[in-house]
Amino acid sequence: MFVTPEPEQTRAASRHARGERSREAILDAAAQVATVEGIDGLSIGRLAQAVGMSKSGLFGHFGSKEELQLATIDAATELFEQHVLAPAETATDGLGRLRLLTDGYLRYVEDDIFPGGCFFASVLSEMDTRPGPVRDRLVGFLTDWLGRLEAAIRQAQEEGSLAAGEEPVDLAFELESTLFFANAQYVVSGTREPIERARRIVERRLARATR
Amino acid sequence: MFVTPEPEQTRAASRHARGERSREAILDAAAQVATVEGIDGLSIGRLAQAVGMSKSGLFGHFGSKEELQLATIDAATELFEQHVLAPAETATDGLGRLRLLTDGYLRYVEDDIFPGGCFFASVLSEMDTRPGPVRDRLVGFLTDWLGRLEAAIRQAQEEGSLAAGEEPVDLAFELESTLFFANAQYVVSGTREPIERARRIVERRLARATR
Repeated sequence: MFVTPEPEQTRAASRHARGERSREAILDAAAQVATVEGIDGLSIGRLAQAVGMSKSGLFGHFGSKEELQLATIDAATELFEQHVLAPAETATDGLGRLRLLTDGYLRYVEDDIFPGGCFFASVLSEMDTRPGPVRDRLVGFLTDWLGRLEAAIRQAQEEGSLAAGEEPVDLAFELESTLFFANAQYVVSGTREPIERARRIVERRLARATR
Repeated sequence: MFVTPEPEQTRAASRHARGERSREAILDAAAQVATVEGIDGLSIGRLAQAVGMSKSGLFGHFGSKEELQLATIDAATELFEQHVLAPAETATDGLGRLRLLTDGYLRYVEDDIFPGGCFFASVLSEMDTRPGPVRDRLVGFLTDWLGRLEAAIRQAQEEGSLAAGEEPVDLAFELESTLFFANAQYVVSGTREPIERARRIVERRLARATR
């Protein structure tokens, strides 16, 4: 039998949904700000100003600056999963997935998902000399990303579509180097030229590895 | 006839020399701090604390934060010239100079000339979204560096030691990508492993380009 929710439950669910939407909107703004002004400058006060909320309202969502920073990284990770990782999961073979991962990354950069280029490149270079949970979470993201490139390379080797002589860690390092510098040059130049150059370089590198 | 300098002139010269030494020491400290805490946090007050001087004493050297930042970039550029560019000038051929530039960069990173890795990679990624003279000077440095790699590649092609079919801008981009990511991974991992990996990758890439 279908049970109509009690008014009290409905209101609570609605408050909860509003809270979640609001939290998502705040974290989205936080991730945008972090790629331009840095994640260390992401104080509750600065964010309150950016999203037009009171500091006390934000404190209800995040108890501390560190909690806010970690939640911001998680929100950026979700965006990255949506734009880069999930589309690559549609590939059934290793080489196909490797191409979707590298293409997907370059598209994510040139589509300006964040105003200061790749969120992770931007904030990790800021936090790399500052030990703590924020740095750890960012390094964890990078380790996972490199692991995905390597796994796709190994699968492609098992499938015979990439040469067995290629060292997977070296090849992943080469591909990631190209993506990482392309992102930096895209932010510096404000043109798509480094993205297009990186695309050619990745494609040539993979063509050579398939011989 | 040899003229003994007047006491007044001697004292003035000595004051000038002391002032220069002191300015150099301050800027060296400033460049070190900038790679760990960022160049935007490099206020006169923060630097006064780092070098143990009064704020008013520092104001005598640098009238503004921006002037201090620009002078810090110039001091870091001098260190880079000394450690990377000058040694490469000893090469008489293009391929030799290209190897000295790439090897020199990796050595400059692993020798910890700056505590937060390459000064320019560190501060450019911080300032890339902030228009102004500081960003312009950093972008100028990077443009000059890429131009040197390209010039060495073109010279090597003219000398017949690098294949004419290699596109110089692409090859410079590939080499710089490897160096740039090696620096980032060196700072993140705290080990020489990414430096050694980059050395192998650069050497293999050049070996392929010489065929």
